[in-house]
Amino acid sequence: MSKLWFRYSAMGAGKSIHLLQVANNYESNSKRVALFTALIDNRSGEAGVIESRLGVKRRAETFDVDTVFDARLVGPSVSCILVDEAQFLTPDQVRQLHRLVHDLGVPAICYGLRSDFRGEPFPGSAMLLTCADAIEELRRTCACDRKATMNMRLDAAGNRVREGEQVQVGGDESYRAVCPSCFYLEWEAE
Amino acid sequence: MSKLWFRYSAMGAGKSIHLLQVANNYESNSKRVALFTALIDNRSGEAGVIESRLGVKRRAETFDVDTVFDARLVGPSVSCILVDEAQFLTPDQVRQLHRLVHDLGVPAICYGLRSDFRGEPFPGSAMLLTCADAIEELRRTCACDRKATMNMRLDAAGNRVREGEQVQVGGDESYRAVCPSCFYLEWEAE
Amino acid sequence: MSKLWFRYSAMGAGKSIHLLQVANNYESNSKRVALFTALIDNRSGEAGVIESRLGVKRRAETFDVDTVFDARLVGPSVSCILVDEAQFLTPDQVRQLHRLVHDLGVPAICYGLRSDFRGEPFPGSAMLLTCADAIEELRRTCACDRKATMNMRLDAAGNRVREGEQVQVGGDESYRAVCPSCFYLEWEAE
Amino acid sequence: MSKLWFRYSAMGAGKSIHLLQVANNYESNSKRVALFTALIDNRSGEAGVIESRLGVKRRAETFDVDTVFDARLVGPSVSCILVDEAQFLTPDQVRQLHRLVHDLGVPAICYGLRSDFRGEPFPGSAMLLTCADAIEELRRTCACDRKATMNMRLDAAGNRVREGEQVQVGGDESYRAVCPSCFYLEWEAE
Repeated sequence: MSKLWFRYSAMGAGKSIHLLQVANNYESNSKRVALFTALIDNRSGEAGVIESRLGVKRRAETFDVDTVFDARLVGPSVSCILVDEAQFLTPDQVRQLHRLVHDLGVPAICYGLRSDFRGEPFPGSAMLLTCADAIEELRRTCACDRKATMNMRLDAAGNRVREGEQVQVGGDESYRAVCPSCFYLEWEAE
Repeated sequence: MSKLWFRYSAMGAGKSIHLLQVANNYESNSKRVALFTALIDNRSGEAGVIESRLGVKRRAETFDVDTVFDARLVGPSVSCILVDEAQFLTPDQVRQLHRLVHDLGVPAICYGLRSDFRGEPFPGSAMLLTCADAIEELRRTCACDRKATMNMRLDAAGNRVREGEQVQVGGDESYRAVCPSCFYLEWEAE
Repeated sequence: MSKLWFRYSAMGAGKSIHLLQVANNYESNSKRVALFTALIDNRSGEAGVIESRLGVKRRAETFDVDTVFDARLVGPSVSCILVDEAQFLTPDQVRQLHRLVHDLGVPAICYGLRSDFRGEPFPGSAMLLTCADAIEELRRTCACDRKATMNMRLDAAGNRVREGEQVQVGGDESYRAVCPSCFYLEWEAE
Repeated sequence: MSKLWFRYSAMGAGKSIHLLQVANNYESNSKRVALFTALIDNRSGEAGVIESRLGVKRRAETFDVDTVFDARLVGPSVSCILVDEAQFLTPDQVRQLHRLVHDLGVPAICYGLRSDFRGEPFPGSAMLLTCADAIEELRRTCACDRKATMNMRLDAAGNRVREGEQVQVGGDESYRAVCPSCFYLEWEAE
């Protein structure tokens, strides 16, 4: 049985390099993969690039809310579908991917965040967590050495931001992966 | 670091017996546990009972949407909080449990379904999947021998039901755990 | 792909009840399972019984070092092979089971301890950990609330025993599941 | 509780890049890590280099059978110990690492193979699997698209080698990660 996978983590745990390694594994067996990332993510200076902090990067197809994940989009002879920034999928797109996996018998592996800077779910991630045939966490540690599972948003001065839009694309200067104990500090103050 | 756990499965995989075993493990170390289950679940003929198909059962406190999970509810000297039928928690209650775990340093283990008979998330489960410090699947197999991850609702004649309320308490006669391939059969017909 | 599973834990974590639940799951789908346990385990007062501390028990075929796990032993029309006390398998028997799973396309799930009272591997468990297509831990906690992964042997007075034969069948009065920190206390004194 | 981790996989699944990403995660929190790899591994043209197929590499301390893993070796102020090619640890060294983790309260993460080209355990890996506080698999697929869990040795002509020394350092030209079904083909012929 092919599976829809969701590999989640907090910011900066190595989702992109994990995805690029999986692509490499398939290709070393002379297989084709289909790579997707969110159009909205332009942290590499342009859209359509999956880039790791370790310095490895690669082009990918982009998706936005209007993309339909079906057999035509994925193309023929693909052995694995890989989706980065999967927290930006809509719940409907997750359903499309889930059906596609089980109709075509091709695995899809989605990488993304679970929760936003307020600790609230991304709708696409909640649907991935609900449907995925396998869920795996990529770990990283908080500055306090506990496991980081949540994301703090920071302003330009490095202070925590507690209100705002769910989506605001940014890198290590704008977000910090933290453990729940650090995340809930001064929570009542909100 | 104490953790909020979510152990999920499709119907009838053994969530309740798993919970009762964990309670037994703590008690064999002379520790106290706090047991909760949903008031709405009266499959044992009464509310406030956690019962396994293997014939083991035990009384538990009940929760409904008005319950507040805080230190007072849990009581002193508790080493583990165990919640059955956790798909009936509200997202707010999940947040309460998450904060309680990290404030008190006491683990909480929630057992529940991920998705309803239409393949849609239970709101409490989506929040558990978003916040939980550890997620584990309890496996069972579909009649076709693939892994069952979804739940089909059946009517009294054993036919599939595709529309209705999200919550309708029932046992093995009303629900069947199935794999995604079996679940999506004739899906377009809906 | 059918898999050889190894589900391991320290003493008393609930391996037997987990096995009995899996058997129940298959049978509720009208499937047959083949149950095995070690001839040497007579804690139920007789051999050939898989019994949980929760009060559920059931008869099983027994194996000893001369048993050959092949298609003839398992019998026809079996959907799952379940082996309790799998630390008493020989490495050769683990190889037989691994090949059987992939020849017949029938899953086998083995439940057992990893290490003995000295922290040394059981040979069968080491081979299961080496070959198994999937490895899962069943958790329990030490009296100090950390995760228990090791086993201490106790004498009749409840004192720790540090030398002796690897195999000495006994129950909760003879063994205690402990975390590594408790296990290594006074280790140098040995 | 700090943990001894064993992250295992078949050849070429991305163990080294995973290790390098973990190092990067700690360092982005301004923490120090201690990196080790096996002296025997000279695939980068020299010993003491951890190198990924994705093109990332980095120097590391080397270990051989005489290395003693203790607090002095690791050095002060280290937040994580990372060991590549951990199948070359001796069982005694694994015990040293396990005790070190629980004495110092510093996590150690070991990356390695489970079994050799004959499907037999590496002694260090068997001990890691026996002691590790957490075990995780890094997945890759066989050319037949099943999960690869075993390793085939190839000669210069690309033919399978079935006899020889357990240790023979080589890269993608000398080993192929395969699933059990492919591994056991013509097994009787041995």
